Amino acid sequence: MCGIVGYCGPKSVTPILLDGLKRLEYRGYDSAGIAVEGSDAIKVIKRTGKIQDLRAIVSVNLEGHCGIGHTRWATHGGVTDINAHPHLDASGKIAVVHNGIIENYTALKASLEKQGVHFVSETDSEVLPHLIAYYYQGDLEKAVRQALRQVKGTYGIAVIHLDEPGRIVGARYGSPLVIGVGDGEMLLASDVTAMIAHTKQVVYLEDGELVSLTKDTYTITDLNDQQVDKQVDEIQWDLEAIEKEGFACFMEKEIFEQPESIARTLSGRLDLEYATGKLGGLNMTSRELLAVKRIKIVAAGTSWHAGLVGAYLIETLARIPASAELSSELRYRNSVVEPDTIYFAVTQSGETADTLYAMRELKRKGARVLGICNVVGSTIARESDGGVYTHAGPEIAVASTKAFTSQLAVFYVFALLMARMRDMSVSAGQRFVKELQGIPEKVREVLKQRDHIQALAKKYYKARDFLFLGRGLEYPVALEGALKLKEISYIHAEGYSAGEIKHGPIALVNEETPSVFLVPRDYLREKVISNMKEIKARKGPIIALCTEGDAEVAAIADDIIPVPAVDELFYPFILIIPLQLFAYFCALELGRDVDQPRNLAKSVTVE
Amino acid sequence: MCGIVGYCGPKSVTPILLDGLKRLEYRGYDSAGIAVEGSDAIKVIKRTGKIQDLRAIVSVNLEGHCGIGHTRWATHGGVTDINAHPHLDASGKIAVVHNGIIENYTALKASLEKQGVHFVSETDSEVLPHLIAYYYQGDLEKAVRQALRQVKGTYGIAVIHLDEPGRIVGARYGSPLVIGVGDGEMLLASDVTAMIAHTKQVVYLEDGELVSLTKDTYTITDLNDQQVDKQVDEIQWDLEAIEKEGFACFMEKEIFEQPESIARTLSGRLDLEYATGKLGGLNMTSRELLAVKRIKIVAAGTSWHAGLVGAYLIETLARIPASAELSSELRYRNSVVEPDTIYFAVTQSGETADTLYAMRELKRKGARVLGICNVVGSTIARESDGGVYTHAGPEIAVASTKAFTSQLAVFYVFALLMARMRDMSVSAGQRFVKELQGIPEKVREVLKQRDHIQALAKKYYKARDFLFLGRGLEYPVALEGALKLKEISYIHAEGYSAGEIKHGPIALVNEETPSVFLVPRDYLREKVISNMKEIKARKGPIIALCTEGDAEVAAIADDIIPVPAVDELFYPFILIIPLQLFAYFCALELGRDVDQPRNLAKSVTVE
Repeated sequence: MCGIVGYCGPKSVTPILLDGLKRLEYRGYDSAGIAVEGSDAIKVIKRTGKIQDLRAIVSVNLEGHCGIGHTRWATHGGVTDINAHPHLDASGKIAVVHNGIIENYTALKASLEKQGVHFVSETDSEVLPHLIAYYYQGDLEKAVRQALRQVKGTYGIAVIHLDEPGRIVGARYGSPLVIGVGDGEMLLASDVTAMIAHTKQVVYLEDGELVSLTKDTYTITDLNDQQVDKQVDEIQWDLEAIEKEGFACFMEKEIFEQPESIARTLSGRLDLEYATGKLGGLNMTSRELLAVKRIKIVAAGTSWHAGLVGAYLIETLARIPASAELSSELRYRNSVVEPDTIYFAVTQSGETADTLYAMRELKRKGARVLGICNVVGSTIARESDGGVYTHAGPEIAVASTKAFTSQLAVFYVFALLMARMRDMSVSAGQRFVKELQGIPEKVREVLKQRDHIQALAKKYYKARDFLFLGRGLEYPVALEGALKLKEISYIHAEGYSAGEIKHGPIALVNEETPSVFLVPRDYLREKVISNMKEIKARKGPIIALCTEGDAEVAAIADDIIPVPAVDELFYPFILIIPLQLFAYFCALELGRDVDQPRNLAKSVTVE
Repeated sequence: MCGIVGYCGPKSVTPILLDGLKRLEYRGYDSAGIAVEGSDAIKVIKRTGKIQDLRAIVSVNLEGHCGIGHTRWATHGGVTDINAHPHLDASGKIAVVHNGIIENYTALKASLEKQGVHFVSETDSEVLPHLIAYYYQGDLEKAVRQALRQVKGTYGIAVIHLDEPGRIVGARYGSPLVIGVGDGEMLLASDVTAMIAHTKQVVYLEDGELVSLTKDTYTITDLNDQQVDKQVDEIQWDLEAIEKEGFACFMEKEIFEQPESIARTLSGRLDLEYATGKLGGLNMTSRELLAVKRIKIVAAGTSWHAGLVGAYLIETLARIPASAELSSELRYRNSVVEPDTIYFAVTQSGETADTLYAMRELKRKGARVLGICNVVGSTIARESDGGVYTHAGPEIAVASTKAFTSQLAVFYVFALLMARMRDMSVSAGQRFVKELQGIPEKVREVLKQRDHIQALAKKYYKARDFLFLGRGLEYPVALEGALKLKEISYIHAEGYSAGEIKHGPIALVNEETPSVFLVPRDYLREKVISNMKEIKARKGPIIALCTEGDAEVAAIADDIIPVPAVDELFYPFILIIPLQLFAYFCALELGRDVDQPRNLAKSVTVE
């Protein structure tokens, strides 16, 4: 969350910063601002609202060739113009943009105030320009390094100084920062999406690294001023991957992209001959995989839901006890780490702070942690002991869709791999492989229900509360469906195991509270039908997602969304799609900003 | 859920049935009815509504000395007069009341209809009188036995026949049934509360057993007509335990009873000399307890929340990996059972169907399952390999309160026991014992905040949505606080780990959505304060439960509920009390029926 962009080069900097911020807007959109080096002053323009609001007040005369920009998701301090970044020091010569949280800012601020520094904002970030100014003696890089030695917390920063024109100093600790290496121009950003229009050559900074760049050079050092050599990576996708391509918004585009994104995740990972999965990135030998006695998954939000499906599937198929836990809980509870256990850290961005810190705590305890990430080169991808890239392509919408189904696909391949090393037969493995290969086509079929689901959204969007109910593999899917609706429509939707409602939540049910049931033709169908009858006896409206041709379910439900039949283990792929579409269309009916829902931001890089 | 009562004896049966049903009303209150043997006909009176509505239409002339009654929680078929029990056969001579679900009723009904039987209700239960009539040839007991051999599903039933005056036949399979042995009178009920006013001598039926009783005799047989000898048990508590004793409702009484009920749970279970716990009922030697490598807890609803606290505590203190899972999920997911694992089945009633079936599945797989139950002699208490009674006393309010804190107390004793067998020192054990012994007094202190909490309820009860947020040990407490509010006020309250809100749920937050934060002085306090700031940056109102004197929290929150300081592991006891009271007072403000919330019933004996 929060986005940083910086540019040095021959072009006019302002449009590049504004376009970069627009690309980063999914990371935070409370407020935004830019700072541009003029000939005699740093010019700062910032305000609450989205990038289009900022653009509206940027003067055409804001000329310059070096500058930094920021889009914010508020943590410390409310959403005000003053609290927006960039922040300046007292002289107005130093401008800083900052992602992360300065944990000791109260102490730093008090000490600076004692020296007469006057603070204008309520942010933790504002200590940075003042602190850098305090140390500045003609060398910005050095001043930044000295300042950062005083700081506790997390940061990705970009800094400019009027007295050192054409230079940007950046540094990272816990918040990502990438250098874009152009031809006679350099960029710095929290995320490659902000620079892909200019260059595909990038250098990822690590924690504790600092960069000083001009239009032609970049020098990377650590906090002890030791120079660091880094490789240049090339981005593997194109600008179109982060364009809407005719869709109304990124979420819609990403929902409809899922047949391709799931296929990409599976590509090259299914071994037909031996009817198993291939995941070389795990960095584990067959012997090591066979010795695994326990699998634990740590994740947050949507990734946690994918992990719940994964745990269920692994234990069911491979007979290895598996569970999924929230990163923010695991990190602090001093869990027991056992030597024969492997952990998966699951995150789209690879930067999710809760998951990253949980991973580090586990690794400190000696655990082997594998990553399941979408963003290549992300922190978790780099720090984990191995892992799997989902290859879903850039996900821009804040509400995750294709990242979820690609995470599922990874777990299906992994469960197959582990099961085939144990008790699953070749023929069962072949059936599994074929079913999995057929999933993208089945997803394509489900997407054809678009109009029907839109009609249902028009019928139900006024409901203030929803229950989403499923059992077994469909229980996490219900949680995910409820989360989607909550995130983008702000309707209070809650997911429950359908077997659990009579232990309390059914008290919420009346004529005005619809329940969305996941009731495919599987071994739990009869039980879920009983739960549907309990709801109908209380006059609750029911939307049922069921297998095509299920007349019994259709007779009980008020409305149905029929889905094609698949093997009973594969319904999560098929059932989440209508729930994503339902959330999307409800949000549209309610006039919500689908790609940038209130209070949220993509890639939660604070705890 | 659902209640059964029957009586044979010299007294007038109608008031006994009505009073018994009143006692059972917490088990279900959709509709109720009674069937009384007259001299020439079975007289049935039944209707939707509560027992007081039934009482209003019962004629004073409904004389008789043998009869059966029922209070219903609808599963199959809506809430209508016709669907209320008792149900009659076509001749009107046989009356049946039934708890449970007849799973093959569709087939049975079709076959009876082929033979010309006309059904009047939509219930599964109505097949029973028709089926018994089909087999009846002058011996009711035999006809019931033959009928039940055809039935798949669960039942507790009571049956009378006009041609066999003064006899009640009962049978159980999956739904509890107890015989009350009086002096020249006999009772039959689903729950001892219905008979405690008449006798304390009881005989618990087991699954597959059938009883034929008259005012002086009872004969117990199995479905193969083999006689079964059973012992007579004596109830250990008095009628006052199920009276309101001056409180407005049972829930209020039970909330205020917690200093005593927790003390009862702890009584005799703390060993001061060795600074450990004593739980003889586990039926496990020290050697066996030392060999335990893993602990899993299965439960539903409020008991699951207690289990989540228990798992956290056990893993933290005893360093044994522990987790808690929903019964309805565990039962069907073919989980891996490992030999060095023990399971706890946690349920107030000891009859919760989901938990019972999960336990049976686990035992079938060879697992050792221990029960944590409140009701002595309940099915889970009898079928488990050992366990612990909570001794909280009868809990009548549907929303569980004292059962929860007593379940917590059991887990604290157990965690101490296991920790002291492993790495906890004597001195740490002594501190733990002292802190635990002091909890009832701290709870008493918290209860003094009654008026303050009532004032907060008056301020906030109009909110349509609430978030309840905590981390670590307080995360399950947040879930439980939200469940309480949901159950009795019908406000949509949702519990979350406070660390998880920024991954989606925070989208719900605006000026109208209050958040209740659990933020005691523990090692997670700083992190929770950060989460509070995230909410405040989005203008969400905050009620914070914090340790007395915490000015920092008070400065951020809109309102606080201060609680006395305890060791950081013990806050769940202290923090749940204000949440119970808050739910209670919100429900009062909204004019809800606190003890009998809509759609719910005590002791969920169906899946």
